[in-house]
Parts: sequence; structure tokens; C-alpha cells
Amino acid sequence: MAEFSVDPYADLYARRTAGMSASEVRALFAVASRPEVVSLAGGMPFVQALPREDVLEVVRAVIEESSDVALQYGGGIGHLALRERLTALMAEEGAVADPEGVVVTTGAQQALDLIGKVFIDPGDEIVVEAPSYVGALSAFSAYEPRFVQVDLDDDGMIVEQLEDALLKGARPKFVYTVPNFHNPAGVTMSTARRERLTALCREAGIPIVEDNPYGMLRFEGHSPPTLRSLDPLNVIYLGTVSKVFAPGVRLGWAAAELGVIQRMVLAKEAADLCGSNFTQLIGERYLSGDRWRINLGTLVDTYRSRRDAMLESLEEHFPEDATWTHPAGGFYVWVTLPDYFDTSTMLAAAVERRVAYVPGSAFYPDGRGRDRMRLSFSYPTEHAIREGVRRLGALLADEEELYRSLRR
Amino acid sequence: MAEFSVDPYADLYARRTAGMSASEVRALFAVASRPEVVSLAGGMPFVQALPREDVLEVVRAVIEESSDVALQYGGGIGHLALRERLTALMAEEGAVADPEGVVVTTGAQQALDLIGKVFIDPGDEIVVEAPSYVGALSAFSAYEPRFVQVDLDDDGMIVEQLEDALLKGARPKFVYTVPNFHNPAGVTMSTARRERLTALCREAGIPIVEDNPYGMLRFEGHSPPTLRSLDPLNVIYLGTVSKVFAPGVRLGWAAAELGVIQRMVLAKEAADLCGSNFTQLIGERYLSGDRWRINLGTLVDTYRSRRDAMLESLEEHFPEDATWTHPAGGFYVWVTLPDYFDTSTMLAAAVERRVAYVPGSAFYPDGRGRDRMRLSFSYPTEHAIREGVRRLGALLADEEELYRSLRR
Repeated sequence: MAEFSVDPYADLYARRTAGMSASEVRALFAVASRPEVVSLAGGMPFVQALPREDVLEVVRAVIEESSDVALQYGGGIGHLALRERLTALMAEEGAVADPEGVVVTTGAQQALDLIGKVFIDPGDEIVVEAPSYVGALSAFSAYEPRFVQVDLDDDGMIVEQLEDALLKGARPKFVYTVPNFHNPAGVTMSTARRERLTALCREAGIPIVEDNPYGMLRFEGHSPPTLRSLDPLNVIYLGTVSKVFAPGVRLGWAAAELGVIQRMVLAKEAADLCGSNFTQLIGERYLSGDRWRINLGTLVDTYRSRRDAMLESLEEHFPEDATWTHPAGGFYVWVTLPDYFDTSTMLAAAVERRVAYVPGSAFYPDGRGRDRMRLSFSYPTEHAIREGVRRLGALLADEEELYRSLRR
Repeated sequence: MAEFSVDPYADLYARRTAGMSASEVRALFAVASRPEVVSLAGGMPFVQALPREDVLEVVRAVIEESSDVALQYGGGIGHLALRERLTALMAEEGAVADPEGVVVTTGAQQALDLIGKVFIDPGDEIVVEAPSYVGALSAFSAYEPRFVQVDLDDDGMIVEQLEDALLKGARPKFVYTVPNFHNPAGVTMSTARRERLTALCREAGIPIVEDNPYGMLRFEGHSPPTLRSLDPLNVIYLGTVSKVFAPGVRLGWAAAELGVIQRMVLAKEAADLCGSNFTQLIGERYLSGDRWRINLGTLVDTYRSRRDAMLESLEEHFPEDATWTHPAGGFYVWVTLPDYFDTSTMLAAAVERRVAYVPGSAFYPDGRGRDRMRLSFSYPTEHAIREGVRRLGALLADEEELYRSLRR
């Protein structure tokens, strides 16, 4: 996809398409689907754990009771009963929202696109974490911003760096962060950082976009307060049902101040008229009982075991001078290798050895991160994870050997 | 929605949001939903005609046979089996496409948004019909084009006007048209015009966007060739299953040259990662049997009777100096009133008399069309259509009376 054939319209495309490239994450779908490859790449939820009969029961009820609504167009803001359900879900994480201040989107990804559309003029600054969720970088890039990058450590975004950037004159339209079980870094922002970030942004009049897909996938310990709970007026909160139910229904949402939501709704109507009433009614109904909590509990147990398997096998198979994060939830471990490794060029060799990961550079807008890799433990079995990490470890050992032999 | 409350972010929004306004079509949803109002406004398919058991059977099969795929993320281009099905559907209208040259979208509306994203830089010219589908105007407007408007008559787009515009130096990125049963105008482009349009655009190197949501809803007569069949290489064809199945599954598509599709896929991945596998599998399965043809036949019969009811009651109740189109398919009749009428200001009085329509100005980017109105016959019963047109006719008579008394 990166190379285009001779194209009669080459001179007609918009400037923004020059920045569009097939994300490495997406390109890896093809590779990951080959059965002999252990994919530690894609961040797919383990939907196989969802009892089929639970889904069937919900869908049957929607068709039998509400097919005329389910099959029809709806409003751009989304189905009211679902928006009520989603605010109830937010409340469980201490985040307050009114259903009128919520727009339902096609996964949280569409909320990122709409935020870009509503806020970004070409050349505008926006703040992202380094590394940052690759899908957010793609969504925002379409609106041609300048990225101001703020580094992460084990406590999440280093807010002091943001403070410095603002002092030096940065005027971002918003600050984008994944505070819980970061994608790709696996880290969680500390309470102290959260308080500092919300206070800083409130004072500077800069909205915060809090992207929280993994908040309910906590394996141990206590959740720090959501940014939204620390400053409900200045935080645009993004959620998704992809991780608590299923990505296949494509349901996410944004909660924000009314002026923002009104503009996002207009942008959504321009983008696709409305979301699917059918999947909205299904999502609403699935989240209305208690079965989903039981299913989610099972899923969290599975993810925890897989995280453990990954951390144990990293300890066993990875070089001593590699480091990695220890996520307390979510899907990802972020590995930092000695800087002579280049995970982008190494990927082909990895796939040849039947293991896949996402190279670190995918998560920076400026090509940094070539000594990093994202490993996902959400989808493969424990056995596959151990085998995949073993294969990767063997590759790293060989590469290290090669490097040392060349230096001799 | 048109008025925004005091907003802390008023200075932060992107320039394009200044052009975003709640479409009159959308705003009317609220009005139209009150049971005492006959809505001739929204263009909703009559999904009540879909046998519930047909839907349930399809959905049950998808969950029982493919739930792991249906509930998971998919690729941005869309599910292959569905793309194959959609190209077969196109072939029935003489339009050739390869499944690799098709991207599945959230209704055809998302295809319009992606086309805008891929082609339009601020200030670029694009050609639209006058009047034009309001959703296309909204989708394209987000990318800040300059609209070059080409008038319609009973034979569709007046291609000579486009020729003149090109001679005078217009350099549009693309030409957008709804050639069959136009929304809002109800007219169908003649074969001669189609041939002239495709030849002209090919010579000028300007892609044509052929939006064909209503092509399969023909009440009588023969279909002229699709633009795509006249020039497969230079026509971007848009389709939707909203009218042959249901809008609630939000499935549309674009077929185009590979370079265009590749960019649209990247833009789609940035916009929402992927469409719903669940509704894609449902759509594919629904369209794979023969039941859908029987259901569509029933639906076309219903729409034909409703069209007849509308034309008959217009004849009976509308002023002699009003004219209207006589659609051979689709959803809409387009009424031209004497020019002292203003359908925008008259709408409130109409709603007070329990009837709704869409004012003509919604369908022009420049506020023209105040003496026009779009009447939809797709959703209300024949009885309701007759009563609605009667109410509208009485209002027009009173308005005419008032106008004449003021002139005396």
C-alpha cells in the first residue's frame, strides 16, 4: 500500500494525502493472520471469550422488540438509551457526564477524527505523548497539525515538559493523552501528574483529550482518578465498548462541553450521517444486564495471565540490557532495546522467524523509537506468547552477536 | 443546534467549523417524529416492510457461524465477501468493478467524506448539481472547496453549462452527480447527457463521482447506462445498501481506480479504523440469497403507489402555477412554486398545520432555491401523503391569498 501505481489523478489529490501512509499496525494484519506466525503485533481483544449465546440473546431481543428503530437511520448524536448507559459506565470511573453532552462514534477512533476536524487548522500545534497511539497520530495528521511531543516515563506523561513547552510559547489546540495502560507504552499516569496536568491545562485554557479505552481492564491495584473527574469542564473524555464488549459493533463515544459536542455532531453528520442504530441498540442491551460484568471479569483474568506469561518470558529470553514496562492492565508491553537495534528493519527477519510485533517508530510522528517495540498480550494464548517471545529473544541474541562481531 | 451557548473554546475551533450548520433535514427529525405531523421531509426508507424473520435468520446465522469474525476488528477496505457481493450488485446495473477496487464505507455518506478528504484542499473547485444532495454539500464543505454549480432540468445535469464553466477556466477536482432519481430533484439524467458528460470529463481529466443510492428503485421504464459503465476508468461509483436492505446497518461503498481506493482506505483507517464486521457480514448474507429481491420488489411496489398518491394529490391541491417533477423511481418530488413564496420562512407555518417538507435552499450552497421544496414519498402511507399534500396545498392557497391582498 505504501507504493502507488501510476495514477491518472496524481495531480488532483489533496495536500493532506502526502502524509497518509499505510500504518505498520494495519499492514501487519496480513502477516499476523498466517497461522504459523505468533502475532504480538495487533491489539485485538480476545472476543472468543464472549459467550455466543449471550450475544445471540441480545441481538434477538433487539430485532424482536425494536427492529423498526434498529434498521432505520438515527440522529447524529446517537441513541439516547445508549448515551445514558455510557454515562453510567463513565460514572463507575468517577467521570461525570450528561447524556446530552455525549456523542456516540464509530469506535473511539472516529471521536479522534472528529476532534481533529473540529479543532485543527493546518499548522496548528497539538500536544501528543511520545510515544503515542498510532491511530490518534493518523487521525490528527489528516488535518495537518504540528505535533508537540511530550515524553513518557513509568508515571505517564512528563507534565514538566509540557509546562516548559508552554513557557517557551507553544499554543496547542489540545493535549492528547492515554492515561491508563498506555498504548503503546503500557504505563499509567500517576495521580500527582494527573493533578498537575489538569491544573496546568485549565490555567492555560487548553482542553485535554483523555482517551480511556483500557480503564476497565485493570489487573491489580487501584485506579487513579480519571482526568475527567479532576476537571469535568476542561476534559474531552473518549471511551469505547470495543474492550468491554466487542470491536465488531464499532461503538465509542466522546463526552465534552456542549459547544464541543454540538460541533462534533455536525462533523459526524457530515462524515456518515449517523452511526448504526442496530449496533447501538445491541451495545445498549448488552451493557444493561449484569452478564457483561461476568464476561469482563473472565476476560480480565485471561489478560492478566497473558501479561504474566509475557513478562516472565521476557525475563527469560530477552537480552539483559533490554528494558520493558510492567503494565497493571490493558494490552501492551513496551520494550526498549540497546540503541544499536533497529526494530523497523528487523521486522522482516522476525516475521521470517514466525513472530510479529509493532516497530516503535510507528508511535512517533518524527520517526523516533527505532530501538523500541510494542508487544501485545491480548490475543495470543499464553503458550503462543511464550513461544513468540522465545523466537524474538533468539533473533535479538543473533542480532546482538552480529553487531558485536562487526565491532570487533 | 444553530445557536451555540457561550463557549470557552470559541477561539480554538478550526476555521472549517464556521461553515458547519445543523442541516435543515436533520433538524426536522425532531419535528417529523411527532405523530400528528405528516412528514414529507426526511428520506427514510420504509423499513417496516422488511420481514423481521428474514433479518433474524440472517443475524442468527452470522453469529452461529462467524461470531469470532463478526465481533472482531476488520481491515479498513472492508470484508472481502461483501465487496464481492457489492460488485455483483453493480454488475446488475452494468457497472464493472473489481472487489480490490472497492472500499466499504459507513453508508455512502462516508464515501463522500473520504472523497472530500482525499481530493479537496481549501479553495479547490468542485462541481455539484444545483440543486444537490444536502449531505454531499455538508461532507465536501468540511474541506472548504469552492462550489461550481451546474443546473438541472428534467434530463438531469445540463452538461453544456459544465462545458462552459470549463471553457471559462474552471478546474474542478471532480464532478459530483446523482444521475438516477435525483435527490432532491427526482429527475434522471438522459443517456445523451451521460455520454456527453463522461466524454467531456475524460477529455478534461476530471473524475466523476456517480452517487447511485436509488438506481434499483425504478418504478417503470428502462434504466439508462450508469456513468461507470460508460467510463469505468474515470468514474468513482458510490452505492449503498440503505435502500435495498436497511440504513441501520450503515453499509455503503465506493468503487474506483486503485490509487483512489488506496487513499480512501488510508483515510478511512484514520477516520474509524474499520467498519463493523458484524453489519458487513449481515449485509453480505442478506444480499446472498433471493429473499432480498422479493422484499425489494414489494418495497418498489409500495414506493410506486406512494409516488402516485403524491402526484395525484399535488395535481388536486397545489396552485396552478406550481410545477413539480415526475420521478420514475427513488424517493423525491421537487416542487417549484411561484417566486414570491419563501419555503424557508413558510416551514414554521407548515409545521403548525402538521405537515413538514425540506425547504429548497438546503440543497444549494449559496442559499438559492427559496421557491422550491422537496417532498418525500418514501415513508408515509398513501393516506398520510394525500393528507399532508392537502394541508400543504391549503397553506399555499392562504399564502397566495395573502400575497395578492398585499399587492392590491
